[in-house]
Amino acid sequence: MAEKVQPRIMKGLRDFLPEDMVKRNYVIDILKKTFESHGFMQLETPAIEMWDILSGKYGEEGEQLIYRFKDRGERDLGLRYDLTVPLSRVSAMYQHKIVKPFKRYQIQPVWRADKPGKGRFREFYQCDMDIIGCADTMADAEVIATAWEGLKKLGFRNFVIKFNSRKILKGMVELSGAGADKETDVCTAIDKLDKIGVEGVERELLTRGVSEEAKDRILEFIKIQGTPQEVILQAHSRFKDSEWAQKGIEEMSALRRLLDFMGVPESNLMFDLSLARGLNYYTGPIFETVVEKPKIGSISGGGRYDNMIGQYVGTPIPATGNSIGLERIITVMEELGMYPENIGSGVKVLICRFPDEDLAYSMKLASRLRSEGISTEVYLNSSKLRGQLGYAEDRNIPIAVIAGGNELKEGNVVIKDMTKREQFTTPDAEIAAKIKELLG
Amino acid sequence: MAEKVQPRIMKGLRDFLPEDMVKRNYVIDILKKTFESHGFMQLETPAIEMWDILSGKYGEEGEQLIYRFKDRGERDLGLRYDLTVPLSRVSAMYQHKIVKPFKRYQIQPVWRADKPGKGRFREFYQCDMDIIGCADTMADAEVIATAWEGLKKLGFRNFVIKFNSRKILKGMVELSGAGADKETDVCTAIDKLDKIGVEGVERELLTRGVSEEAKDRILEFIKIQGTPQEVILQAHSRFKDSEWAQKGIEEMSALRRLLDFMGVPESNLMFDLSLARGLNYYTGPIFETVVEKPKIGSISGGGRYDNMIGQYVGTPIPATGNSIGLERIITVMEELGMYPENIGSGVKVLICRFPDEDLAYSMKLASRLRSEGISTEVYLNSSKLRGQLGYAEDRNIPIAVIAGGNELKEGNVVIKDMTKREQFTTPDAEIAAKIKELLG
Repeated sequence: MAEKVQPRIMKGLRDFLPEDMVKRNYVIDILKKTFESHGFMQLETPAIEMWDILSGKYGEEGEQLIYRFKDRGERDLGLRYDLTVPLSRVSAMYQHKIVKPFKRYQIQPVWRADKPGKGRFREFYQCDMDIIGCADTMADAEVIATAWEGLKKLGFRNFVIKFNSRKILKGMVELSGAGADKETDVCTAIDKLDKIGVEGVERELLTRGVSEEAKDRILEFIKIQGTPQEVILQAHSRFKDSEWAQKGIEEMSALRRLLDFMGVPESNLMFDLSLARGLNYYTGPIFETVVEKPKIGSISGGGRYDNMIGQYVGTPIPATGNSIGLERIITVMEELGMYPENIGSGVKVLICRFPDEDLAYSMKLASRLRSEGISTEVYLNSSKLRGQLGYAEDRNIPIAVIAGGNELKEGNVVIKDMTKREQFTTPDAEIAAKIKELLG
Repeated sequence: MAEKVQPRIMKGLRDFLPEDMVKRNYVIDILKKTFESHGFMQLETPAIEMWDILSGKYGEEGEQLIYRFKDRGERDLGLRYDLTVPLSRVSAMYQHKIVKPFKRYQIQPVWRADKPGKGRFREFYQCDMDIIGCADTMADAEVIATAWEGLKKLGFRNFVIKFNSRKILKGMVELSGAGADKETDVCTAIDKLDKIGVEGVERELLTRGVSEEAKDRILEFIKIQGTPQEVILQAHSRFKDSEWAQKGIEEMSALRRLLDFMGVPESNLMFDLSLARGLNYYTGPIFETVVEKPKIGSISGGGRYDNMIGQYVGTPIPATGNSIGLERIITVMEELGMYPENIGSGVKVLICRFPDEDLAYSMKLASRLRSEGISTEVYLNSSKLRGQLGYAEDRNIPIAVIAGGNELKEGNVVIKDMTKREQFTTPDAEIAAKIKELLG
């Protein structure tokens, strides 16, 4: 055929070989089960969206990272950039068909034409759960508590769920005297607190045209610390002159109580007045789950965005959601050795291949073992026994069965425990039981 | 925000709402379990491939259907068109890491810039299993038998697995006197037999420059019919002067025997000398699973392609694979009502929401039920009870729990069976047991 082509993929893309897939599936299965046990239902949307659906949603910098192309009909298209915009489109398109509140989860890849780097990919999975059509803080509590439960089931400990409200931030800007038009600037600046420290935020606020006086007030506000209950009390008196802030504080108070009902202990909650989150579209509670030990940063985050779907429908539809950092979780669990041993459904038994007259028996035995729930393969090539056992070792298949020759004529097979390097001559009727015993 | 955008997707693309996903997941789960029980392992590859990897693989018409674009670095890229080319690339890239024979399955979407029509989409899932690094007919038998088992588990009956060999077709062209350069033309023509009938094939052969005499011989060859064993015997003598054909017949004979060992009854096999399959790259056994009743055509198909991976590696690496028509299966199962009732993990219990003092109890009860494996949600909005029960009905939630007021003070809840419209006052300790009883 054609001349040799160098087999390769673009930087920032990844092939997931079976050993990767086993881990990815382990994480995804646990999260799916958690979501579904809470009544979230799966949605999938196409990779390709019309350009005007994607456009104007991610800010100028974000929009440049969309893979954009035209099809033969000269339609302007783009690859999915996140799962929130497709959900908003779906909520609008099928608004009369979807029962609300609509609790959906979605686990699909997204694409970003970004410079790849450590942990930054051009294709990666997002794992989002959202509730559409519920303005009540119950919905925010539900997406926080469900994510938290999923992370616990994956083995994460020492969580802190930081929460705050865009309404409080709005009130804070109001009270600081910075001017309502500075809300985005203030949020962008204080969102960087963890990265650039107080002095950095100070500089950023001034650069963004916030007055010296307003800047000082803002820094004072975000210094308020303590247990959630203490922060609520302090904030309540400090922000008493802002209606927006008062509304936000009420929501935070309800959120705290609901999370308590849902089993998230207060010791794991942190009402953090400096939490701002970058995205423009949040309108109410915002939240982020941070693993403190080991220090790996945020592994989930989200918030309420009551105005997004309205763009497509014409009237506002309340929405809130939480996105789990699937790729980071998969990587971190690897680094910390958090995967259980023997995960995945790797094949358990290799039946070695013998000449044709014994092959019929081997095939039937394989069927029998599979019907007992034991993943089994018959060796495919006609290699020597040594080569076949080598294959079992290379593939980490724990059991090899040698079914042939005189032993088979007497109704027996040899079962080799590849890990312990023991072997057993076992009568036909007892094979499955013996293998189950060895697999433990 | 911005002006209203019409929420829509391009024709030929689909959103899968939860009721669709439940069915898709049902089919995919059964197939995955079948593949894994045979030792096939999952692979995933990125949606975006370098253009030169995709180019030259699908014929001129196929290549025009690839979604092609450049990224900001002016790299020439395309969206995945099938799963065979990515597998071939992976087999070459990781050739020293992958243990062979490499049994992989892959279930991912592919994209075609095609005119959409009934059952023809611009994004659709493919579901492929392949074996790399095994030249033995065992591998062909394995991919046929595994697909067959998956289809049986999905509830398909009355299969016919048609099989043939490209080697026989090669020999047939040789013996017909059409000339070796006419092999592709002959295959393309007879591949249309089902669609255009014998006369159509006759015309097509002549149009493609096959001589009258050669055409007659070819039509005579492909008329040979009977049980696989009968066709093998007849073909053996008719094709005795072609070495290629003899090799092919030997393979078919081995295939038939191996499929028998693997539990596929001879009555479901059909050695069909007119089976050609469209794609250029096949080199040995080819096969297609056809459901005869109801008449829905082929639901899986594949064959051996020993020369494809060699393009990337430099030396030939044997490969064979079978592709299951996932989208067709999902649709047909719907049309024929083949999905079991109550599939999927829909939520089983709605706990109605009561005022705050009772909410803590509701949340804890929800946790308890989930830990017993019962998917449960607490109603999120503060609607009236009637509205909450309406939601349970709309979502097909079979059980509603009313936990509040005086009943709760006495330690009881009311459990409503939404299907039978019965209700039970149940003490706290017996709730889970009662719900399990009602769910059956």
